[in-house]
Amino acid sequence: MDGEKKSEIGRESLALHAAHSGKLEIRSKVPLASRDDLSRAYTPGVAEVCRKIADDPETVWKYTLKSNTIAIISDGTAVLGLGNIGPLAGIPVMEGKAILFKEFAGVDAFPICLDAKSEDLVRIIRSLAPVFGGINLEDIAAPACFEIEEELQDLGIPVMHDDQHGAAVAVLAAIINACRVTGKCFENLKVVVCGAGAAGYAICRLLKCIGYDTQSCTPVKELIACDTSGIIYRGRPGLYENKYKFILGDETNSIHRTGTLADAMRSADVFVGVSVANLVTQEMIRSMGSDPIVLSLANPVPEIMPDKAKAAGAAIIGTGRSDYPNQVNNVLAFPGIFRGALDASATRITDEMKIAAAHAIAECVCDPTPERILPDPLDRGVVPAVAQAVKKAAVACGVVRNT
Amino acid sequence: MDGEKKSEIGRESLALHAAHSGKLEIRSKVPLASRDDLSRAYTPGVAEVCRKIADDPETVWKYTLKSNTIAIISDGTAVLGLGNIGPLAGIPVMEGKAILFKEFAGVDAFPICLDAKSEDLVRIIRSLAPVFGGINLEDIAAPACFEIEEELQDLGIPVMHDDQHGAAVAVLAAIINACRVTGKCFENLKVVVCGAGAAGYAICRLLKCIGYDTQSCTPVKELIACDTSGIIYRGRPGLYENKYKFILGDETNSIHRTGTLADAMRSADVFVGVSVANLVTQEMIRSMGSDPIVLSLANPVPEIMPDKAKAAGAAIIGTGRSDYPNQVNNVLAFPGIFRGALDASATRITDEMKIAAAHAIAECVCDPTPERILPDPLDRGVVPAVAQAVKKAAVACGVVRNT
Repeated sequence: MDGEKKSEIGRESLALHAAHSGKLEIRSKVPLASRDDLSRAYTPGVAEVCRKIADDPETVWKYTLKSNTIAIISDGTAVLGLGNIGPLAGIPVMEGKAILFKEFAGVDAFPICLDAKSEDLVRIIRSLAPVFGGINLEDIAAPACFEIEEELQDLGIPVMHDDQHGAAVAVLAAIINACRVTGKCFENLKVVVCGAGAAGYAICRLLKCIGYDTQSCTPVKELIACDTSGIIYRGRPGLYENKYKFILGDETNSIHRTGTLADAMRSADVFVGVSVANLVTQEMIRSMGSDPIVLSLANPVPEIMPDKAKAAGAAIIGTGRSDYPNQVNNVLAFPGIFRGALDASATRITDEMKIAAAHAIAECVCDPTPERILPDPLDRGVVPAVAQAVKKAAVACGVVRNT
Repeated sequence: MDGEKKSEIGRESLALHAAHSGKLEIRSKVPLASRDDLSRAYTPGVAEVCRKIADDPETVWKYTLKSNTIAIISDGTAVLGLGNIGPLAGIPVMEGKAILFKEFAGVDAFPICLDAKSEDLVRIIRSLAPVFGGINLEDIAAPACFEIEEELQDLGIPVMHDDQHGAAVAVLAAIINACRVTGKCFENLKVVVCGAGAAGYAICRLLKCIGYDTQSCTPVKELIACDTSGIIYRGRPGLYENKYKFILGDETNSIHRTGTLADAMRSADVFVGVSVANLVTQEMIRSMGSDPIVLSLANPVPEIMPDKAKAAGAAIIGTGRSDYPNQVNNVLAFPGIFRGALDASATRITDEMKIAAAHAIAECVCDPTPERILPDPLDRGVVPAVAQAVKKAAVACGVVRNT
């Protein structure tokens, strides 16, 4: 997308937001025209519903919005590529995500932008849980996002940080189909992940099955993670300061490579970039193994532009952008994951459910080609397929409420 | 309402709630059909909107849902007449209130039911504020509700505990028109308020202008508040334990009456009951002054049933119920108050705004009669009238943001 086109979309977006004062509204699903309508939807009839739930709290799923409603919760510390712009400036993203949830998956989602210190987020989010059937954490900076998500796994409703797992699921789906196209074998892949924030960490975990207590996870052969200091390796000075990078140092890079991103990429099969613009040169692409797979997802400007990657020999190229083929976008993942989790009455989102989602996304493309390893984000077949796979996995894992 | 009719409404209410899984849904106000739609409503276009708000936080009112969205926040400690049934069981009430807000006033309202200790509520609610243009506190037990509302008045958005002020505004409107019907003079009224919880305290404050720093508040001549221990008077043993009852002891009952509710009611012009069923006898009504005004608002069973009050000589009778004339219902107040506050870009809801709301409600009845001192809750003319009066008062008070 060139600068002019981009600024045009920005202008149109501002106009759209101003015209409607935002993007979502609350609507009644029940009639409110007569006195009797009021008596049933509100007092005095509603007292009977309250009593029922007080007597049997499980009936809250039957009688209230909870069963189809999730919160999209952010503190605005890592919004898009814009960084820590705060909870007010994060609202348009959360509101946008809310309408995508409804449009694609029929999930009622409400944006919650918290003005709070990260150490208070867990307690605040716990207190918010009664109304919601699930929680989509969003745009919370690493490493706080990892701890917050972990600590909330006992809430009894699905809690997922989408910047981590939505991205990881979409990347896994892309790599699965890229293997089908190139004839590479997933288990033999040598992968470099550039960026060790929320998305990078989750991608590494999923591709290397770090902490995945499931037989449905297949690890790639070799994985090297890089951050701004270069290759992450066990014993790298200062690594212990960040628990999550320490884990990466321990669990990846079994060949103990050190050095720069360029060193990491030599002979790799797959490059996954979730970092910043223009980090990767054509030389680095040329140093990769045969038929390299390049998922260059930095937004809006990728680590290497598709035309340059192609000229340097990349066999498959994906970006985060809608104006190039193979958009690796978590909108392929999150609506179906939460739809499936809600449909299953799931109490959490397990690793199996995420892996099932990735395979379901990949299978939405019958005959993948270099220009089409992923379905279109607007393809209405994706959410039902993902939801069904996720629901099935939830039931198989036994993480469902008795209903 | 007899028991059979009541249980029928309860059954119908349960069926309605189960049929729709609650009562509200989230909807998009913008199109999401094409790739361009997505680019404007979500990425990449939305980044421009985020940047704009980060640069100038006031523009959040222009570009997001905030300008028309309020939170209905409860901790479930005092739900309807059901008491402390908890946040889950409170959801149907908050959800019901949310759809009333939209239906009557076009306000988007979302129910937030907090699982939290009352001492944590202020901090949690502060953290939730970014998304909302106002906060309706609901069904929070006294005396915590008083402190929480007070402490949140500096948030920069209107925060109102409806159980207090919605009820007080509706009662003031009822008394204004009851005076028109009976020829009594408001300033000469002797009033008894039975019940010193959230509603009772706010009614006393408003009728006696306690803490009201405004010339638009006219106090009644004499006001006596009663609780379960009888008349509240200065120096009553134990009164200092509850700051708010202590204030009532100090600011009401200037004639230092002591004794029971029956003692309080002798020669009174107005009885306002916000307590429990069947506390008031016909004898007590007969002991009141001429043409007594009896607002017996305990729900679902009033302090005295209308037919009994009438037989004992009550000139005007109001209840909280929809199946008798003169329903004193805060649905007359809250939608218009918040509509007006949002329309005015108000930073808080002042005493003047509440008083303006009460007069606007009263004026919606052109020729009040004993059977009709208040407009019907379904009367679509009430909200615009109240909103306009509240907006005007907000501007006059200078509690509006620069827009």
